[in-house]
Formats: sequence, structure tokens, C-alpha cells
Amino acid sequence: MDHSGPVCVLGLGLIGGSLLRDLVAAGTSAFGWNRSTATVDAAIADGFDVSGDLVATLRRAEKEDALIVLGVPVPALPTMLSAVAEHAPSCGITDVTSVKGEVLSLVEDHGLSDRFVGGHPMAGTADSGWDATMEGLFRGAVWVVTTDGAPELPDETVDATWLRIWCRVVHLAVGVGAAVVPARSAAHDGAVARISHLTHVLAESLAVTADRGGALSLSLAASSFRDATRVAGTEPGLVRAMCENNRDALVTALDETISLLQQARADLAAPDRDIAGLVDAGHAARLRYEALAGRVAGEPSARPYIRLQPGVSGWLEQLHYAESVGAQIALLEV
Amino acid sequence: MDHSGPVCVLGLGLIGGSLLRDLVAAGTSAFGWNRSTATVDAAIADGFDVSGDLVATLRRAEKEDALIVLGVPVPALPTMLSAVAEHAPSCGITDVTSVKGEVLSLVEDHGLSDRFVGGHPMAGTADSGWDATMEGLFRGAVWVVTTDGAPELPDETVDATWLRIWCRVVHLAVGVGAAVVPARSAAHDGAVARISHLTHVLAESLAVTADRGGALSLSLAASSFRDATRVAGTEPGLVRAMCENNRDALVTALDETISLLQQARADLAAPDRDIAGLVDAGHAARLRYEALAGRVAGEPSARPYIRLQPGVSGWLEQLHYAESVGAQIALLEV
Repeated sequence: MDHSGPVCVLGLGLIGGSLLRDLVAAGTSAFGWNRSTATVDAAIADGFDVSGDLVATLRRAEKEDALIVLGVPVPALPTMLSAVAEHAPSCGITDVTSVKGEVLSLVEDHGLSDRFVGGHPMAGTADSGWDATMEGLFRGAVWVVTTDGAPELPDETVDATWLRIWCRVVHLAVGVGAAVVPARSAAHDGAVARISHLTHVLAESLAVTADRGGALSLSLAASSFRDATRVAGTEPGLVRAMCENNRDALVTALDETISLLQQARADLAAPDRDIAGLVDAGHAARLRYEALAGRVAGEPSARPYIRLQPGVSGWLEQLHYAESVGAQIALLEV
Repeated sequence: MDHSGPVCVLGLGLIGGSLLRDLVAAGTSAFGWNRSTATVDAAIADGFDVSGDLVATLRRAEKEDALIVLGVPVPALPTMLSAVAEHAPSCGITDVTSVKGEVLSLVEDHGLSDRFVGGHPMAGTADSGWDATMEGLFRGAVWVVTTDGAPELPDETVDATWLRIWCRVVHLAVGVGAAVVPARSAAHDGAVARISHLTHVLAESLAVTADRGGALSLSLAASSFRDATRVAGTEPGLVRAMCENNRDALVTALDETISLLQQARADLAAPDRDIAGLVDAGHAARLRYEALAGRVAGEPSARPYIRLQPGVSGWLEQLHYAESVGAQIALLEV
């Protein structure tokens, strides 16, 4: 099974634009579209095959059997999906947004779920737009590829069209140097709520509480405060887009955290009680994270690595096992 | 007014031991005591004037009019204060622990508050004990010096003994390269609850909540999670000692944070509401912090710097002004 083929990137911001750069650098046939004329002109000037004509771009994608990558923000997705349904009715589709359940339900609303596989490259910089794009952005980064089209039970039939597109999306991410981690959309959203969106909400709350302490508080703040509030420096619109597009999972994570904080508060208010429970559990959790990810940034990850051979007996069980342990996967060619 | 003089350091762990090293390196007459024979032997082998005999050390401090630095942990303070009261009845006293209200009330219990000025050097490493001590640990670090002995109203008389000791403590901290920030004990404890102890409790709670999300959560965690949970890697006993010795102020800070999180939770649970209020406020607070402390670690701080001339008309108002803006101070000689 050949997982390569042309790629059509819709939206050439930091993620979409950097992907286009990497694909072309690797010799893949890739072309793109962007709404803004300035971006189209800049990308053409940099030597890329880019257009501002959405209909023409999608018709070309259909003709060339390109994999369509939705590189636009969530609010722009409904318009894009309608255009894809109309002008590229048989292309495979993936996306690069940070929430997966919301996108999946938009895709279902447009009747496109049989040829959609979600993606979330966990890479980025503080900058955005074509000017911020670069080669190598995804090297070593996790790229979640969704598995909602894979049957839960191994004796169910895997849809051949879905499997072909799923393999192409995995191939795309591996080809730009990313570590592909498979996950159901709901599992992805639950996980990123806990490790990313919750991190943002806590950083904002910590920054506000410290600021309310007045000039002395900020004057005494040291590296622990600096690190813990770093992401509160993120542009507010980006933080809101992440959190407000993943409300249900973030509410669940927040409820757990609020409950832990209320317990700590009650224990601190009682002179004869202590917070050993929370502190010991938090320390143990951090050590588990360090065991997986390394003690300091840049150390090799101990994330499990599993090779799959789609279509071979038992491969679905292996895929679900990989999901359950958060493993990185690679595809063995049949 | 001469603010120099011998210094007697009781407890030669990371802070006390590093202080002894800096003092001796600067040519100050300094000697120390430690409970553990191993530490005493190691310090003597390194060329320092150190003893394991507490009574003899305190009698020498009394004879030489040394400033006594309490370098022991909070639980050991009552024993130390009793010994100081008995064997060094006229020496000035300071400390280096991270909570100030709890220490002040122990000092009052021992009838020593008229010659006590609290201190909190905000420096440290992950290691502890004499082996971890080093020259230069305090260079550029904030060293809070308490001001509880200074009258609130400028027309009240400043106690001359207290002022003499206060100046010696400021001189000590400035002499090892620290940035002295003056604060009332209660204001200090409120501030560190917000910027340090709350940071620890949130990091522990975030680590636990992420860990409960299972292997996928930890596998997807990136640099924002790494930075936000870094201090959850701190030895649990140290975290508990900080937080449990500053219960009241930490409860106040926690109540404010829990309230912010509950509001965010309610806004996320209502499809027509957003979290712009929290996100905008958190972003603004982080920018205020960066304006003060620099955008990245190591940039110069914009902390205000105020020179005081103790005893000169208006100096008390200037001191209280410095407290209100979290300023660094230096003493001008009269």
C-alpha cells in the first residue's frame, strides 16, 4: 500500500505554512491556498505553488487525489468543509487544530466523516502567520492522529477508504519528523484538557492572584512563579480559542483540580491537619512524568514505540494497545 | 553609625553555610555552630571557625557583640531561641527562614522581639547541607528584611537598639550581594503565599490531575506542562514545611484562586459564556510581572531602588514607601 501522494494545504499560517515548506523540501508534491492575498504573494515569492482561488485549488486536489490538510482556525472550518464537500468530493481530509471532538462533529455535520482523520501537531512558536513559518517545526514533536474510524472490536471490518486515508495522514506526519501518537478524539481532548488547557487556566489564575497581592508580591516573585505563569503571556485570543473549544473536557479537569485545592484549603485551615496527601501525590506524579519525558527539557523520551502493519491480523488490537499506553507508532509496509 | 561587626551563624546548611563562606571571603569576622559533628568537621577542614558547642558559641557571640543568624529550620527555632536568651542576652538576632510571622511569634514567646529583625534570603538550589554550600549564592537574590520594629507613624520614636540591629541586618545582606527588600512580616507572608506557596500547591494539583488522565495525558504533555509542574519535583518535606508554616496567608490566596477557577468553570459550562475576564486579567498580570522582572530569566529587573538615611527626618516615611512599592533599599551612612 502506497501512503504517499500529493498534499493540498488550506490555510498557510504557522502550522499549515511550515507543513508546506517541509513537504516541498522532502520532495512531496504539495500545493496550498490562503485567503489573504499578502500571504499568497509572499508564499509565491518564496517559490511555493500557492493560490488565492479556493474553488480552483479544491478542484485540483480532487483531480490529483490530494490529501487535504485543513490549516485554518476552528471558526473557519464550516466554510472550508462546505467547499471541500462541493468541490473535492472524494479527497481524504485531515486537520491540524488543537481540539478534536469539536472538529469531528463539524465534519459529521458536513457528511464527511468517512474520509476524515483528525490530526494535532503539538508544535508551535509564539509567532504566527506565513512570516513565522519554518522548515523543521515538527521534528520530534508529537502529532496526534485520531482513530475514531477504527472499530473498537477486532472482528469488525475496517472501512478500506478510511484506512487508506488514515495511513496517508500517519505517513504525512512521520514524513515531517513528528512522533505520531494515535488517540480517539474524546481521549485526545480529555488529555489535552488536563496537560495543556488546565495549565493555561491555572497560570492565568495564579498570575491574577499574585498581582492582587500588590507590588511587594510581584517584586518577590522568583523563578518558580516565572515558570508557572509563562503561558499566561500567550495571546488571550489563542488561550480562549483552545479552552472554549474544549469546554466539556476542561470542566471535568477543572472540577478535579478545584476539589484537590478545596481539600488542601480545608487541611491548611485546620491546625492539626497537613497537606501530605496532595504533596506526596503531586511529587509522585511529577516523577512519573519525568520518567517518561526526561528530567529536563531535551532529554530523550521514554515514550513506548510500536510498529503496526495495518491489515495484518491483530493490528487493530495493537493500535488500541498503543492508544492505551500513549505510544508512538510507525507503519510497517505490507 | 557603623553597621559592621562579627557575625555568628547557627546552623550551617545551604543558607547558613553559604552565608558563612561569603562573610569570611569578604573579610568579616564570622564564626558558626552546627549540631552535626560531621558538618563541624567538614567546615573546619574547609578552614572555617566552627564549633559543635552551642553554649560556648553563644557566650563568644555575647562577648564579641556578634549578630546572631538563626540558620536552622523552623522546628529547631524554639530550642535555639531559649539558648540565645540564656547565653547571649544582648546580641542582635536575625533568621533566614521562608516564613516571617510564625518566627516573629516564636521570638515574642521568648521575649526577644526588641532585638530581632527577620530575614528571608530568596535563594537556594535543589541541594542542601554543608556539601551544597557555595560562595555567591545570594548575589542578585532578593533578601527580605522585616520592619515590624519600625513605627507606623513617623512621629513615634524608633527604638535605638532595634534600629542598630536592623541596620546591621541590612548591611549583612547587602554585603553578600543581595537586593534588600523591606517588608512587615505579615506583608511578606501574604506575598510569598501568593507567588511561592500557591505556586507549589497549584503545581502539585496540576500534576495529580494530569496523572489521573492516564498514560496518554503524560505522553502528550509538552513544555507548558513541564514548566508549570517543575516545582512539584521539590522534596515533599520542604513543600510541606513552607506551606504548613504559612497557613493563614496561603488559605487567603487559595480562596481567591479557587474562586477564579470556579468562575471559569461556570463560564465554560455555559455554552453562551466565555472566559475572557480571567484570560485578559491573567495576561495583563503576567505583562506587569514581565515589565518588572524582565521577559525572560536573567534580564535586568526594573524593581525600584531607594536610598535611605536612617535617623534623618522623613526616613521612616521613605521606608514605608519602599515597602509599599516592593523597592530594593540601600543605606546611606549618616
